[in-house]
Amino acid sequence: MHGKEDGQGFIILKLDDGEDLMDSLKGAISQFGITSGHVISGIGMLRDIEIGYFQGKEKGYCLRSLEEPHELVSLQGSISTKEGVTIHLHCSLANSNHEIVGGHLNRATVCVLNEILIRKTDKTVLGRIHNAKTGLKELTVA
Amino acid sequence: MHGKEDGQGFIILKLDDGEDLMDSLKGAISQFGITSGHVISGIGMLRDIEIGYFQGKEKGYCLRSLEEPHELVSLQGSISTKEGVTIHLHCSLANSNHEIVGGHLNRATVCVLNEILIRKTDKTVLGRIHNAKTGLKELTVA
Amino acid sequence: MHGKEDGQGFIILKLDDGEDLMDSLKGAISQFGITSGHVISGIGMLRDIEIGYFQGKEKGYCLRSLEEPHELVSLQGSISTKEGVTIHLHCSLANSNHEIVGGHLNRATVCVLNEILIRKTDKTVLGRIHNAKTGLKELTVA
Repeated sequence: MHGKEDGQGFIILKLDDGEDLMDSLKGAISQFGITSGHVISGIGMLRDIEIGYFQGKEKGYCLRSLEEPHELVSLQGSISTKEGVTIHLHCSLANSNHEIVGGHLNRATVCVLNEILIRKTDKTVLGRIHNAKTGLKELTVA
Repeated sequence: MHGKEDGQGFIILKLDDGEDLMDSLKGAISQFGITSGHVISGIGMLRDIEIGYFQGKEKGYCLRSLEEPHELVSLQGSISTKEGVTIHLHCSLANSNHEIVGGHLNRATVCVLNEILIRKTDKTVLGRIHNAKTGLKELTVA
Repeated sequence: MHGKEDGQGFIILKLDDGEDLMDSLKGAISQFGITSGHVISGIGMLRDIEIGYFQGKEKGYCLRSLEEPHELVSLQGSISTKEGVTIHLHCSLANSNHEIVGGHLNRATVCVLNEILIRKTDKTVLGRIHNAKTGLKELTVA
C-alpha cells in the first residue's frame, strides 16, 4: 500500500495484489493519523472475500465466502478509532459474468490492485457503542 | 437521526431503526441548513423499500416493493432545495442470499441503522427544472 | 454537459441524453482544469454500455455490451492526466427488472440524464505506470 494525503483531508491509496484489504486500511489509518473518517470510494478487484447479511441479534450475520476474483464495483463505509479501530464497509462485487453480489464486507485480499479514496475528519469524532437491542456496536457521532 | 457537521461542509448522520429515510434526510437538510449537496455514501440496512426503473416519459417508473430487510450496499445522489426539497437517490441493496437489486430509490424505512455521509455546498446552487422531453424535473447547476 | 466548480475542489456535472459519457468527462477535465481527481458519485441512466471483467494479463477483459437503458446505480473511480487522460471507472447498473450487473466501465451513452460529482486535487498527482506483471497501466500516487 502506498498513498498520500493532500492536505485537505483526502487520502488516496493504491493497494497491490496479495495485500489484506483490512490490514492495509489499518496501515493507512496509522500512517495518516486518521481518527475518524469515511471510505468514499474503492475500485479494483478482490479475492478470498467474506461478505455478510445481518439477520438480527439472535442469528447474526449470514456469511458467504467468495474465493474467485471479483471486480470491486463500489465500496462505502466509515472509520472510527475511539473504542478501537472499526472499519465498517459495504461493497458490491461483480463476477466473470458481470453479475453482482454484495453486502457487509468482513475480509478480502486485494486482487491485481485497489484504488481507494478516504476522507478523514478531525472535527467530528466517530465512535462505537454497544446497542443491546441490535447486538451491534453502533456508530456514534460527536 | 443524529449527526454533526464538521465545519468543512461534510455532515455525518446516524439513523436508527424505524425512521423513514427520506423524512430523516429532510430533517438533516433543515437542521444543517443544506441548500444544495450530495449524498456521498450510505450503508446499513433498509426495509419497506420502493425502487424504480425509469421507462421513459409515457410509462414512468416501473416500481418494485421490497418488504424484507436488505443490506444498503451503496447510496449516491443529489440534494436540491431551490424549487422545493428534492432528494434524488440511487441505491443498491443485497438480500439474504447476497444478491443485489437496485435503482432509483423512492422510499424506505431504516432497518437496524444507517450511516450516511452528506456534502453540502453553498457555492453551487442546485435546482430542478421540468424537461418536457423526458417528463422529469431535471437537475440544474448554477 | 454543463457543470460548475464550487471553489472547494468539487465539480457538479449534469449530462444530457445522447452524450458520450467518457467524452463528456474529458470535456469536464479540460474545462475545469482537472489534473488529478476522483469520480465520487454518478446516477441517472446509461445505454449502449460496455462493461468488463478483468481475467488477468493473458486473457484481458471479458466484455459485455448492454444496448438497453440501465439505471446508473453507482459510479466510482479515478482521473489521472499525467501520462495522458485516464478515467478509471467502475459502475453498477440496474435493468428493468431491477437486477444489477456491473464492473469496469469501458464506454456508455448518457440516457435521459446523468448527475456526476467529481473531486479534483492539485496537491496529489495521480499518474499511470505499466506493470509488466498485470499488463495494466496502474495508478501512481505522488
